[in-house]
Amino acid sequence: MELNEALYTTRAMRRVKPDPVPDDVVAAMLDAAIRAPTGSGGENWRWLTVTDRSTMTALAEMYREAYHLLNTTMYAGKKEQAEARNDQRALRVMSSSDWLAENFEQVPLVVLAFHRNDPSGASIYPAVWSLMLEARAHGVGATLTTVLSWFKNDEVCAMLDVPTDHGWTNAAAVTCGYPLGRWGLATRKPAQAVTYSERWGAAPTWSVDEPLWNEY
Amino acid sequence: MELNEALYTTRAMRRVKPDPVPDDVVAAMLDAAIRAPTGSGGENWRWLTVTDRSTMTALAEMYREAYHLLNTTMYAGKKEQAEARNDQRALRVMSSSDWLAENFEQVPLVVLAFHRNDPSGASIYPAVWSLMLEARAHGVGATLTTVLSWFKNDEVCAMLDVPTDHGWTNAAAVTCGYPLGRWGLATRKPAQAVTYSERWGAAPTWSVDEPLWNEY
Repeated sequence: MELNEALYTTRAMRRVKPDPVPDDVVAAMLDAAIRAPTGSGGENWRWLTVTDRSTMTALAEMYREAYHLLNTTMYAGKKEQAEARNDQRALRVMSSSDWLAENFEQVPLVVLAFHRNDPSGASIYPAVWSLMLEARAHGVGATLTTVLSWFKNDEVCAMLDVPTDHGWTNAAAVTCGYPLGRWGLATRKPAQAVTYSERWGAAPTWSVDEPLWNEY
Repeated sequence: MELNEALYTTRAMRRVKPDPVPDDVVAAMLDAAIRAPTGSGGENWRWLTVTDRSTMTALAEMYREAYHLLNTTMYAGKKEQAEARNDQRALRVMSSSDWLAENFEQVPLVVLAFHRNDPSGASIYPAVWSLMLEARAHGVGATLTTVLSWFKNDEVCAMLDVPTDHGWTNAAAVTCGYPLGRWGLATRKPAQAVTYSERWGAAPTWSVDEPLWNEY
């Protein structure tokens, strides 16, 4: 797959089929992930693939509790606000997020990313994104979720025997599977609307009228 | 460029030439960056490109102070340990990091990434990594650095008029330029050595003997 097709079309793909992801695809995803830069060459990451149905059911219950906590704290009122301003894009994201919470136990594969000595997340999330881009190249959709790490890290780590006393903590749960939806470009403000030149607020000397890759 | 070539060979490229990065390449880097997934579709990121020499000189001084703080706190003793065990790989990373600190004002372009409402960094770092992968496709080397955000966030934000009272904070300074060094695969433990299956400590059902992409 061409780099730009992957960068431009790998959207959060929450709605996935229950069909399993083959081992050779999982291996390719992990092999690509670990090529990403890692602070001081530390490789302070561990990956844990979950396909077992009883573990997935337990994760699904934790996920729903965490998702409920998110929607009643950090995201409280978001849905009502989106409805009030008829923001269809935001409502689609919420609907898709609801689907994932309701159907989490049907997800065929979850890749949990753990890290330590990585205070900003600058080492783990590039590698997680590489994993998702490689998945995309194999036709597998993925979503980077952080609600388990925000609200249920202790429970997740306890269930999976993660040695938190050695500093390991969950950074993300990446849900993976063959997509029910379609790949496509995400809607974004143009790059020049979120980029400044030399100083905050100063417009850049370039602008991009249409996405520079769009073969869809 | 093929996706795997980018994922497998985009190493931290600290040693770069002073030659400027053209506007069309900068635009391509930013346009690719903003296609990455963003939590709840929030686009809670802003980018600031620095090429101005006086700003770069000020950043370089802050960078050296931050780098010194890093090496005398979090990384204290690392160099001596690497020398004691003759760890040539770690020593090469440190030598390259020293080069960047000493030559920061010669870097032609620094892209600063700012974020808010992104407590784990899970939204900004995938986008930063997309920016670096797109740079790679245009022959531009980049390094994700976090020492300024760790140790000098207030000073950087004050110098560049960043409205920290609206929640904006620096996540990364990405140094960019045409490489002095060569692209190549990073040395890594094999994927199965850092991946567990179903439970921490359990080996996966697959293994990868050689990197799955290696045309170098």
